[in-house]
Amino acid sequence: MTTKAIFYHAGCPVCVAAEDNVAKAIDRSRYNVEVVHLGNDKSRIAEAESAGVESVPALVLDGATFHINFGANLSDLK
Amino acid sequence: MTTKAIFYHAGCPVCVAAEDNVAKAIDRSRYNVEVVHLGNDKSRIAEAESAGVESVPALVLDGATFHINFGANLSDLK
Repeated sequence: MTTKAIFYHAGCPVCVAAEDNVAKAIDRSRYNVEVVHLGNDKSRIAEAESAGVESVPALVLDGATFHINFGANLSDLK
Repeated sequence: MTTKAIFYHAGCPVCVAAEDNVAKAIDRSRYNVEVVHLGNDKSRIAEAESAGVESVPALVLDGATFHINFGANLSDLK
């Protein structure tokens, strides 16, 4: 069984670096990783907010939210 | 061949959460993950600084530094 992981980003350079490194390093045999571009998919912003995401890039792993460096505030994507 | 990854922390609650989730999610078949407690191993603080680590917890992956949430400033560990 795999654990759900969601990587939220907005296409910014900091986001791309985090995706290319941190998100890609995750063990896909144990985690089901979904990548969500909140700039393109604004309907998921509320869901990200509920998970505690305040800025992107962020990784939600097993219900815990981890902000990775800083690209943009979630409020700026609305 | 595995890529070197170093997870720097200082035993703080934010650090422990990041280690239990993000560091443990890394694919060990592709990455050689070293966990460094900078509070206990102050001799490695200079190395972390050189890698661009400004706060812990932080993950250095393939030469790129990613700060994960915020636990403590590196300068406070000296």
